[in-house]
Amino acid sequence: MTAIPQPLARLINSLGRLPGIGRKSATRLALHLLRRPAVEARNLAKELMELHQLITLCSECFAFSESDPCEICRNEARDPGLVCVVEEPGDLLAIEKTGAFKGRYHILHGVLSPVDGIGPEELKVGLLLNRVRRQQVREVLIATSSTVPGEATASYLAGQLEEHTEARITRLAYGIPMGMDIKYADELTLGRAIEARRNTRDR
Amino acid sequence: MTAIPQPLARLINSLGRLPGIGRKSATRLALHLLRRPAVEARNLAKELMELHQLITLCSECFAFSESDPCEICRNEARDPGLVCVVEEPGDLLAIEKTGAFKGRYHILHGVLSPVDGIGPEELKVGLLLNRVRRQQVREVLIATSSTVPGEATASYLAGQLEEHTEARITRLAYGIPMGMDIKYADELTLGRAIEARRNTRDR
Repeated sequence: MTAIPQPLARLINSLGRLPGIGRKSATRLALHLLRRPAVEARNLAKELMELHQLITLCSECFAFSESDPCEICRNEARDPGLVCVVEEPGDLLAIEKTGAFKGRYHILHGVLSPVDGIGPEELKVGLLLNRVRRQQVREVLIATSSTVPGEATASYLAGQLEEHTEARITRLAYGIPMGMDIKYADELTLGRAIEARRNTRDR
Repeated sequence: MTAIPQPLARLINSLGRLPGIGRKSATRLALHLLRRPAVEARNLAKELMELHQLITLCSECFAFSESDPCEICRNEARDPGLVCVVEEPGDLLAIEKTGAFKGRYHILHGVLSPVDGIGPEELKVGLLLNRVRRQQVREVLIATSSTVPGEATASYLAGQLEEHTEARITRLAYGIPMGMDIKYADELTLGRAIEARRNTRDR
């Protein structure tokens, strides 16, 4: 189609390759930026340009950070004896938002997936085992997703940690989400909640 | 929250201000760009930087274009006696995709909205009237949306064009979308389709 100016078409193509953005949304976004003052597109461009320049991976926990080691790994108030293993940086952000976790992290940046060539090496599992031994970590909380690859990764990690370290291995609790009417819970979740039922006195 | 590096937080904020992108999508997009090779974020940045530099408004039809007049206004094969009035550049793209329109355009870049200070001046209505008279346009197809502000704008334009020019004024046909089972059509659309019913012989 000749009606789309080339620079606009290029931007629509690039935006349309981002996850969750189809061609229609990409067109809408590009036209929006074109209608708005030029400074808005320029600011966004500047932020994108700086993204990889200013952010690095923490060599301790593999979180994205402006410094190495990252803020959490440098923070003396965060318990170095408690390490939470997550799949993605987004999971770390979700856990930090709860304020319920005062330990440190290990970010896998993926899950085990032999067909995609993602093995223990890619997930830095060896570095995690070394770190747990070296820093005498007491507990490793494995907080991978409750998906098939997430569970498989968790099992593998638990096995390796049990074999090579002295740390206690824990998983997140599964159960009914807070505020959910039990009749709307899916049966898998409800089944897990029954199996993992707790004495009221333990609370 | 201290866990988000500042450059990432800034990008998430900017992405989250775009239409149809909430905070969660913005976070996902920013983390995606951070995980992908730096060249992808840099290319997107470059395209955004160039957007306003390389694209201008056609002073004839107000379409976004790399040249002034735009490709359509310069194209001798496009009938200058037939002008289609649309609200937004995206509408022009949608019409061009059909291949059913061989005339030229006038882009309003909005609809009449007195509360937002958008009057005939902002929509370049005076320039449209001048152009219709000067170029002896035969027909103006008003293709604004069938929303309340779109219809109000269409009525206003039709009145002005009838008063100040000799052109024939037309609107898009409303009716049942192609391929739609009539039992799923909304009643307003179905009502319009019945009112605007056509003799099979006219086809």
